[in-house]
Amino acid sequence: MEIIRDIEKMQSRAEKTRQGGKRIALVPTMGALHEGHLALMDYGREKANLLVVSIFVNPIQFGPKEDFEKYPRDLQKDSRLTEKRGVDLIFSPEIKAFYPEFFQTYVTVEKVTQNLCGASRPGHFRGVTTVVCKLFNIVKPHLAIFGQKDFQQLIAIQQMVEDLHMDVEVVGRPTIREDDGLAMSSRNVFLSPEERISARSLFQAMQEGQSLFRMGERKTEVLLNRVRGLIMEQPFTRIDYAKICHPRTLEEVKVVEGRGVLALAVWVGATRLIDNCLLEDKGQ
Amino acid sequence: MEIIRDIEKMQSRAEKTRQGGKRIALVPTMGALHEGHLALMDYGREKANLLVVSIFVNPIQFGPKEDFEKYPRDLQKDSRLTEKRGVDLIFSPEIKAFYPEFFQTYVTVEKVTQNLCGASRPGHFRGVTTVVCKLFNIVKPHLAIFGQKDFQQLIAIQQMVEDLHMDVEVVGRPTIREDDGLAMSSRNVFLSPEERISARSLFQAMQEGQSLFRMGERKTEVLLNRVRGLIMEQPFTRIDYAKICHPRTLEEVKVVEGRGVLALAVWVGATRLIDNCLLEDKGQ
Repeated sequence: MEIIRDIEKMQSRAEKTRQGGKRIALVPTMGALHEGHLALMDYGREKANLLVVSIFVNPIQFGPKEDFEKYPRDLQKDSRLTEKRGVDLIFSPEIKAFYPEFFQTYVTVEKVTQNLCGASRPGHFRGVTTVVCKLFNIVKPHLAIFGQKDFQQLIAIQQMVEDLHMDVEVVGRPTIREDDGLAMSSRNVFLSPEERISARSLFQAMQEGQSLFRMGERKTEVLLNRVRGLIMEQPFTRIDYAKICHPRTLEEVKVVEGRGVLALAVWVGATRLIDNCLLEDKGQ
Repeated sequence: MEIIRDIEKMQSRAEKTRQGGKRIALVPTMGALHEGHLALMDYGREKANLLVVSIFVNPIQFGPKEDFEKYPRDLQKDSRLTEKRGVDLIFSPEIKAFYPEFFQTYVTVEKVTQNLCGASRPGHFRGVTTVVCKLFNIVKPHLAIFGQKDFQQLIAIQQMVEDLHMDVEVVGRPTIREDDGLAMSSRNVFLSPEERISARSLFQAMQEGQSLFRMGERKTEVLLNRVRGLIMEQPFTRIDYAKICHPRTLEEVKVVEGRGVLALAVWVGATRLIDNCLLEDKGQ
């Protein structure tokens, strides 16, 4: 497995690969890889000739008071994990080459980024869509694979790709969970053992919400009251948001018609966790 | 010569062309073609196997009070002109397919678009960089050719391409002028015969500015006083701006060190004209 740091080298490799009629899959990551990421790679391995994983902790998607500095980084460990999963190439650019001093261009998806994490983290999705646009232009993938845990991110990227006619197929893959249901996340390492127990409540509350929904409850207020109650009764938890939205526009709904997405952001101690599930008649 | 309106058809043609090892050149236009556009095509014809001209009057680069509705359109005439110049393909998308109802993604170049036309026309350059990004993703050119008359547009596009790592070579080509020096523009048709005479003053004032510069004058205030005076002494003229800027950052300078760009926007009657020239020791 090869590691490329140079942007032009990566781009010219990608162009040659495409010219050779080979398919490229990209799994964009910020490193600190876990089974959730690795499942995306397994999917990409099946679909492409050249499987690229980008590892880049993207400063412009972090707010000034967020955890950019302490975000976990371990390229050596990540390399071992990706190599085992059959990844061909890690692209891990230098931050100064990626964002030179005079850098000033941003890609903004306006509507679907307003609600949910967009409301709590101003500028976050502008940072995400900009970095993904840049990565797409450098790695030139036919296929790009993202986790559904970051549901709003997935929707924003799909919207960007559609609006800007990027010639990339964007695939969202199911969230991978720990045995007790906690969604895999690079930030889970920040949880103390006691907080880790409280963190289960996100999944438990979502299951309860799905269960109520399947029993016929369609009123958002009723569903969310139950969800919020289950989370708040745990120690260390503070709800940033708990909302039910239309799965494409991400606007809040009062009554779930057809499908809805139940989306959570919860502080557990000093760690902010997100999770989501679909509400639909056949369950997730 | 072929005309393609369908976005996916254009994109798949472009992908196949690239896979075949052929080079694509794109001349993006809003139609109403004149010798300035045609000179860009001549340049592209020399450099590429597939020469594409896009014709699309882009609504999102016009302000609400600007001339989107009355902007000249004549696809039949444009087709004849391009065919004569050896263009292979016109790409002219439908507005509703290009900007569907839920469209919401924009590319913004922040710094170099603040001054000059960016100050007079809020949102204009966001519209330009967004449409060019979309066209690049659809037509997949190796080479894209723009006129230097729209100098700030050229700089903004070069900045976007650099910042987002678009794999496109952007070329700026010299302004083509009428015999009396007026820069070719699709908007020149709006000028009455009397206004047309006053419109000469832009070029004459630029020549005077260059002449002063070559004689050693480096103070912006002195240079601009002469330029403004020559334009204002003509009837029908109203200066939107007359500035001397750094040719890469487009920030105004008080003293020209090395090179500067003298940039003008002047209303002549109800028509807004722009022009520019480089100030450098060897002349333009």
